Amino acid sequence: MPTSSNRGRFITLEGGEGAGKSTQLRRLAEALRACGIAVETTREPGGSPGAEEIRGLLVTGETGRWSPVTEALLHTAARRDHLERTVWPALAEGKWVLCDRFFDSTMAYQGYGLGLGRELVETLQRAALGEFRPDLTLILDIDVGKGLRRAASRHGGEDRYERMDIGFHQRLRDGFLDIARREPERCAVVDADTDLDGVQARVWDNVATRLGLES
Amino acid sequence: MPTSSNRGRFITLEGGEGAGKSTQLRRLAEALRACGIAVETTREPGGSPGAEEIRGLLVTGETGRWSPVTEALLHTAARRDHLERTVWPALAEGKWVLCDRFFDSTMAYQGYGLGLGRELVETLQRAALGEFRPDLTLILDIDVGKGLRRAASRHGGEDRYERMDIGFHQRLRDGFLDIARREPERCAVVDADTDLDGVQARVWDNVATRLGLES
Repeated sequence: MPTSSNRGRFITLEGGEGAGKSTQLRRLAEALRACGIAVETTREPGGSPGAEEIRGLLVTGETGRWSPVTEALLHTAARRDHLERTVWPALAEGKWVLCDRFFDSTMAYQGYGLGLGRELVETLQRAALGEFRPDLTLILDIDVGKGLRRAASRHGGEDRYERMDIGFHQRLRDGFLDIARREPERCAVVDADTDLDGVQARVWDNVATRLGLES
Repeated sequence: MPTSSNRGRFITLEGGEGAGKSTQLRRLAEALRACGIAVETTREPGGSPGAEEIRGLLVTGETGRWSPVTEALLHTAARRDHLERTVWPALAEGKWVLCDRFFDSTMAYQGYGLGLGRELVETLQRAALGEFRPDLTLILDIDVGKGLRRAASRHGGEDRYERMDIGFHQRLRDGFLDIARREPERCAVVDADTDLDGVQARVWDNVATRLGLES
């Protein structure tokens, strides 16, 4: 993992289904590039050739295909590959890396949503990541019903999680908010229940303020 | 995981490439069945539909395809699926389960052979298995060069580990022997460097003595 002071910044976007992470990630990347910053965008699960193969096992098929423990292990394996092959090399080159989902999604989906609890997920994260953490995590928060309706209009096949019941999605939302309460220095909750430009402005405010950019 | 006193016994066969595990597992299964015991045979990585899919990622392709950490996580994910879907249900039905490779292979291959060390591998095993352990582990021990020559005459494609250098295979053998020294109550080292009938007789002696069968 890169430790030099010249390394780039690692920003993760988190949130439930249909919160608008991908759109906001694209817009944030453009805004950062306009400031002359070298940006790489990526996603989880996936983001490297090996991790994308693991993604195929995770996001398709029956909802009960894997138990929560197995699923957390597969996500952690994919994450390790993604870090080694994509994220850490880019940060070492001084790039800013924007990632659509990261370890908070494993905590929210498997730890809170599927009832695995925090401890096991934290153990796996330490095993795979050591002390590495995002410099900033933006949690896009939206009403569960609205988010699912947005998501439903979009996907082709990668909908294994979306098909889980509404109680799951509510636990997921509560989980993300609890993560933000526990780590307020790393995490910012962004209200994603408005128009895209409004969300984008709030995302930018957080990035500029917390990572010391001129806005 | 099954805890009833009526549960079956879980026997794992371990060892480097070409030690003869599959052959001895088949013979042991026949001998146990001849005693009227219900036996299920399985293997790792794999042994359940999901775990077999993960196996495909592990045993084919370039030797450097995954880092040791990622590899240990993938093996652990496959193991958890295999336990939940195949091993624990069979043990709960009172069957004896014979497994070609189990968690000692992750310790030997990734922990010792690839230099990951014992601690991380133990952490992952605890996360996936809790306190579950084999009732008996038979470690088939053979000279590294002989084993590799045997293995080379056999495979079609699943040879990613065999293609690693001889130093790796020596660390692997030393690792298995160290595991046996640390857990003598669970592990028996069987000299696999003789004819198949001789190895079979020593395997049977260990099973009969340690698991209380009439021989």
